[in-house]
Amino acid sequence: MDSIFQKIISGEIPCHRIYENDFVLAFLDVAPLSRGHTLVIPKEPVASLHELSPASAAALGEALVKVSQAVVKATGNPQYNILQNNGEQANQAVFHVHFHIIPKPTQQDGLAIEWNPQQLEDGESLAQEIRDLVE
Amino acid sequence: MDSIFQKIISGEIPCHRIYENDFVLAFLDVAPLSRGHTLVIPKEPVASLHELSPASAAALGEALVKVSQAVVKATGNPQYNILQNNGEQANQAVFHVHFHIIPKPTQQDGLAIEWNPQQLEDGESLAQEIRDLVE
Repeated sequence: MDSIFQKIISGEIPCHRIYENDFVLAFLDVAPLSRGHTLVIPKEPVASLHELSPASAAALGEALVKVSQAVVKATGNPQYNILQNNGEQANQAVFHVHFHIIPKPTQQDGLAIEWNPQQLEDGESLAQEIRDLVE
Repeated sequence: MDSIFQKIISGEIPCHRIYENDFVLAFLDVAPLSRGHTLVIPKEPVASLHELSPASAAALGEALVKVSQAVVKATGNPQYNILQNNGEQANQAVFHVHFHIIPKPTQQDGLAIEWNPQQLEDGESLAQEIRDLVE
């Protein structure tokens, strides 16, 4: 079954379009955390970031920068957060990869995050374990 | 003055390295929100995402996917958040672009976010304003 974002890509559902190329589409979030809250999505229909092809990943990186530049100019505000959620527990609601560009015009508006850092234990053995799994 | 991440790139300060190529470096966050919390940074020394060159942006997109794949395998957990902060008000602490890959092993661990969406007003005129500023 197609997600709502696939229907937006196909044109079945309308959107407030900001940018599009062969690999990506950017449009306004209809339930914004702040003015200018924009989504950048790949056209490749995968749910999670780690499932993306290298070509989509590179195009998404480029588009994120390009669209962020326009959002910064339009809002006149260089403060913003980029957020991308994978999995229901991680706050993902639509199961098609999407990056949020969320302007942070004031301390109160935009994305609110809580930061509870821990000590890094066994850093080098953990790094090696992850490093050995990079393909 | 070099940021701490430029000193990590140059090797002046050590890190728990996970991945490196000509454009990017990935390493463990020393104050993790959860086990496997990893940073992916461009070697290009800019503070904010919208300042990045297209080549760095594309390489960063590809590396984010590649490193996320390894973090998912190492932690055995496909739930995670990607976060990148621009500006002090948006929680940026080191002024060199960095993407966080933050595993979300449980509801309590990892990144906690608050989501207070609003109505989208004047969507199409706002979209057009931003669209016209995309270069």
